[in-house]
Amino acid sequence: MIKSKYLENLIDALTILPGIGRKSAQRMAYELLNSNPEKSLYLSQELQNIDTKISKCKICGLYMDFEEVEKQSEDSCHVCERQNRDTSIVCVVGSASDVYSIDESTNYNGYFFVLQGNLSPIDGKGPSEIGLDKLEKHLVKKNIKELILATNTTIEGEATAHYIKDMTSKKGINVSRLAFGLPLNGEIGFLDNETISHAFNERKII
Amino acid sequence: MIKSKYLENLIDALTILPGIGRKSAQRMAYELLNSNPEKSLYLSQELQNIDTKISKCKICGLYMDFEEVEKQSEDSCHVCERQNRDTSIVCVVGSASDVYSIDESTNYNGYFFVLQGNLSPIDGKGPSEIGLDKLEKHLVKKNIKELILATNTTIEGEATAHYIKDMTSKKGINVSRLAFGLPLNGEIGFLDNETISHAFNERKII
Repeated sequence: MIKSKYLENLIDALTILPGIGRKSAQRMAYELLNSNPEKSLYLSQELQNIDTKISKCKICGLYMDFEEVEKQSEDSCHVCERQNRDTSIVCVVGSASDVYSIDESTNYNGYFFVLQGNLSPIDGKGPSEIGLDKLEKHLVKKNIKELILATNTTIEGEATAHYIKDMTSKKGINVSRLAFGLPLNGEIGFLDNETISHAFNERKII
Repeated sequence: MIKSKYLENLIDALTILPGIGRKSAQRMAYELLNSNPEKSLYLSQELQNIDTKISKCKICGLYMDFEEVEKQSEDSCHVCERQNRDTSIVCVVGSASDVYSIDESTNYNGYFFVLQGNLSPIDGKGPSEIGLDKLEKHLVKKNIKELILATNTTIEGEATAHYIKDMTSKKGINVSRLAFGLPLNGEIGFLDNETISHAFNERKII
């Protein structure tokens, strides 16, 4: 069949997006071709900024504009400090996107610390690979009084939470974990047995 | 919350992709940021090609490399002709992606004609907007003997098929429509009543 090689390349390129297989990439390509090319050029430009304009805070791991990161000193993240956040409390998450989820959902006003994923020895991800050594230094240097574990509730997330709990146990830091239970606005019939069992056992008198 | 404005722009830009809402765009942005920037630059480059390297065949509406379209004369699509396709038969589809679906699934060797969607008076899409006037000229010019209707089975697709059937009725062209019935590898319980009713009434002796 007659095919544009550029169209084929575009479809290939779209499959690098997470969750996008070949069929979805095809559909995207055709819709982009049918739309105003300005839209594609806009997306193209923003993708280039990944390489040049966005960087990670050297301290907490949050994504920031590159120029802000350049201005950072070794010890202090002036973007975080500018916000008058409570420096004695830190919330540990497994990915930068979780920071924004928590920030949008709560009135938490402490610092965040972003790990590079969770412990997963099978994938060669040990404590230092995900930044737990950095976290340990951070706890001492910033004289942290309270640590909130907000890692995923997967096996890897749980293992990471346990590791951090052990790591902090002798430091006199209060460690808490986000509550487990039923998610809101959900149907119990769709939940897994472990969640239901946990929620049942931890039921609260109302 | 501290947010990179470039990250915000990237998330906005990703929502132009069909089927991608804000949550998915966020997830994509973070995964791209965690991956090799080469991948994003590659996608960025391919998106730019939409504007400069891919074009539609002036005759059949298929997407081709721009330089191929430039070489076309008013009357003949040398890419189609190069393939020794049967010029007396044409398969009419509502979108370019359907061409590849049909081409991959069948051994059809005639021409294709791509409409710009389907008739939809409510959206201001009449016969000339979707290219039915071009199709009519094409039928005469190419002396088409057989026309296969492969428009969608939506209301708009059906209306378009009926319009084309009427348009061709006095031209001595054999017109056929793809068969309706049960899709393969599916469960009847998940199908809509109209499909089941049609498949039942059109049942074949085996």
